[in-house]
Amino acid sequence: MGSPLGEIMRPCSIAIWGASSSPMKMGTIQLVNLLESGYPGRVYPIHPSEKEILGLRAYRSVTEVGEPVDLALLVLPTRVVPEVLEECGRAGVRRAVIVSGGFKESGGEEGREREREIANIARRHGIRFVGPNCLGVLNSAVPFSTTTIPEPPMGGSIALASQSGAYTAMIYPMLRRMGMRIHQTVSVGNEADLDLVDCLEYFLEEESVKAVGLYVETVRRPRPFVEAARRLARVKPLVAIYVGGNQAGSRASLSHTGAVAGDDRLYGGLLRQAGALRASDMDEMLDWLWALSTQPPMQGGRVAVISNSGGPGASLAYHIERAGLEVPLFSSALREELRGMSNPLAYTGNPIDLTFDTNIFVFKELLQALFVSGEVDGAVIYGIFGSDWFVNLRKRFPGIDGFVDQLKVAYPEFLRGLAETARGKPLLVMSFLGQDSDAIAELGALGVPVLPGARRCASALRALRDYAVLREELAGTTA
Amino acid sequence: MGSPLGEIMRPCSIAIWGASSSPMKMGTIQLVNLLESGYPGRVYPIHPSEKEILGLRAYRSVTEVGEPVDLALLVLPTRVVPEVLEECGRAGVRRAVIVSGGFKESGGEEGREREREIANIARRHGIRFVGPNCLGVLNSAVPFSTTTIPEPPMGGSIALASQSGAYTAMIYPMLRRMGMRIHQTVSVGNEADLDLVDCLEYFLEEESVKAVGLYVETVRRPRPFVEAARRLARVKPLVAIYVGGNQAGSRASLSHTGAVAGDDRLYGGLLRQAGALRASDMDEMLDWLWALSTQPPMQGGRVAVISNSGGPGASLAYHIERAGLEVPLFSSALREELRGMSNPLAYTGNPIDLTFDTNIFVFKELLQALFVSGEVDGAVIYGIFGSDWFVNLRKRFPGIDGFVDQLKVAYPEFLRGLAETARGKPLLVMSFLGQDSDAIAELGALGVPVLPGARRCASALRALRDYAVLREELAGTTA
Repeated sequence: MGSPLGEIMRPCSIAIWGASSSPMKMGTIQLVNLLESGYPGRVYPIHPSEKEILGLRAYRSVTEVGEPVDLALLVLPTRVVPEVLEECGRAGVRRAVIVSGGFKESGGEEGREREREIANIARRHGIRFVGPNCLGVLNSAVPFSTTTIPEPPMGGSIALASQSGAYTAMIYPMLRRMGMRIHQTVSVGNEADLDLVDCLEYFLEEESVKAVGLYVETVRRPRPFVEAARRLARVKPLVAIYVGGNQAGSRASLSHTGAVAGDDRLYGGLLRQAGALRASDMDEMLDWLWALSTQPPMQGGRVAVISNSGGPGASLAYHIERAGLEVPLFSSALREELRGMSNPLAYTGNPIDLTFDTNIFVFKELLQALFVSGEVDGAVIYGIFGSDWFVNLRKRFPGIDGFVDQLKVAYPEFLRGLAETARGKPLLVMSFLGQDSDAIAELGALGVPVLPGARRCASALRALRDYAVLREELAGTTA
Repeated sequence: MGSPLGEIMRPCSIAIWGASSSPMKMGTIQLVNLLESGYPGRVYPIHPSEKEILGLRAYRSVTEVGEPVDLALLVLPTRVVPEVLEECGRAGVRRAVIVSGGFKESGGEEGREREREIANIARRHGIRFVGPNCLGVLNSAVPFSTTTIPEPPMGGSIALASQSGAYTAMIYPMLRRMGMRIHQTVSVGNEADLDLVDCLEYFLEEESVKAVGLYVETVRRPRPFVEAARRLARVKPLVAIYVGGNQAGSRASLSHTGAVAGDDRLYGGLLRQAGALRASDMDEMLDWLWALSTQPPMQGGRVAVISNSGGPGASLAYHIERAGLEVPLFSSALREELRGMSNPLAYTGNPIDLTFDTNIFVFKELLQALFVSGEVDGAVIYGIFGSDWFVNLRKRFPGIDGFVDQLKVAYPEFLRGLAETARGKPLLVMSFLGQDSDAIAELGALGVPVLPGARRCASALRALRDYAVLREELAGTTA
């Protein structure tokens, strides 16, 4: 790897300050979560008096460890951060994550001075660091997570860099509920050293990262940011949210990361120039990233809607058209072909309305015909359900257990076929079902995003189209 | 009650056609779900040959039942619907739900003729009915549900009337995931007899219904619709979605309910005149209905944001201001008061940023001070979490079980106090946590909406403000 952030994201050993035998300390919580995240490397708790912490031998100082320490994780009161950083420098530790707050973000000159101080210490010793005032990092490829929130849904191919720690960690439960996974996150905090630009450069090199999301409150180095972002966006999609651009938002940002936020249009322009798709909020950014990290860019604006239910079909058609895409009426030849596959009450124009039909297997055949026809550039399906739907029936008809068990085998196979059929063109699924539905969980595992609403599907399709257009534009430029 | 829909929604006995010993028939599925929904009335399956269905005595015809039948539920092939309706008429059954499709929505003259035929039969016998081409009804107050989807999350105070069956039933899993409940739903289908206007009139009279949502593809009786809607909106909030207003949406609607959809702006104007708040999609409508059914209308535009995390706080501030509301900077006196309650790193302007703090109990004190101050009209809180957060800590520190058990008692009490403190002014909570968090589940039970995003919270607050303004406008009118 070689890049400073690359080394922080793949440490073979971690020393942690601030953990103790007291369960309610932030450092302890982060050590517990680190251990529970399955981190395979060596962990050295550093503590002035305790001999053992969470079953690990504790050291009075990092110099005592006697083994190489790749990463220092500091979860300490503000005032002791400088001396510990000095100690790290003397002990040859060259990478750190400084979780501690109380620096620039606290507003006063004192905090700014403290931040300059740690930056100077680090520079003197050649230490590169993330923070201060951050939640740390997560990398599924190691795996490890230093955040305060338990049970990150690791995996997938989405990376996030965020000026809000919450947005890299507190979203885990929502991701899990959606069936999404998160591959890497960096909570950059006050960016006293490594910043969003370093994250962009690092994520560009990470092959397993397929889409990158940014939560931005300020861009401290506009020109390098735009350059790094454009280089990245030429290869993989970049999405950003910016909320500092009005009165209330900028006041909030100032108190949060000590960032002086800029005008909304100014930042809108900067992000556009950077080749980033701008999402309005975290939920929208995650929807887009899910689609962008799993589906190919959409090479045209024509979308097929397949539904076994009128309302969702009509809603999808409406929102897709409203998003500036097309829901073209199919040719009579294609409609005829589709009619041969569906039930007599079905409408095969576009949206295809199968009317309520428990035979979901027809979706695959329809999708195949649509994608082969060349009449559409992407598709969205409503109406896939799993064996959970039989919950009441099984109570009253124990005899159908065998049938449902067969479906439990047939569904995943069908869904794999469906995902396979879609290869080359984007496919989204709209469903109100959750991860307790085996079909929905399987779709997520197969890399097919499932979103619970027509507008959200349309918005994600739009992002897939926008990225295709953007990438073509960027390909024609030199920087 | 007396109104035809009121009688359909509270039947003491139901005869059902189309159920049999075959588990995969739609009629069987609806009977199973009816029984599983806890329906306390008598149920009479009608079947030409079977003697017993699902443990219930079956009858060859409704005349054989020999007891009064309040409601006929028809889940039959299209062609036999007329004769069964005739039979109902002769047997004195006066209320029906016709689930069967194949009428006007199928597009041809034949379907339209069939629909006229059943309307005529019904009129001749004084039968009032919902449908055809619908999923039926749900009423938590009975309780009963006739839909094809299992496990409706019954309760709450939201009622839906929908020209899409899916949108009254397939949303159950999403509602459950959100912690929402649904009080009553009517899937109106083709509206050959009872329509949205009847639903509005019925919901107006239902005291337990606190907010009403409509999914509209067409308004068949515009003037009565506007009048009924305005009467309702004067007393309780009304939200509607309309997706038929562009090319793709109108094509979909036509194939779905045989409804000729109108221009988007035309319908926008109609809904505005009707006193309905127009949501863009089902998810937004549900967010609004949750807020509107549990929170008072917001009497001004000033919102307090309380967060223990910078990103969500800044996002809330940004989106609330963007939604046309205010996030006013608090007076110095109030800021001073708030500072006394929070930790030294906190910012108490607005948004209040407590920085990461595991003491969530402070929220109540802060909220109290804010609402007493008179400086805000509503509030949104980010940062409430439950005992589930301790999952990893408990694995490593079994000693804290006792502490967590104490929290399990203290949290609900605190949350009750919080909900109590908010009385009179709207309170929303933003959280990415789900129903597996005891705190989040408790908030839902206490009638505090929890939404997983800043934009969604801002949008729901805006709906609370819009309804306050609208209700004042409507109060000054006579019709």
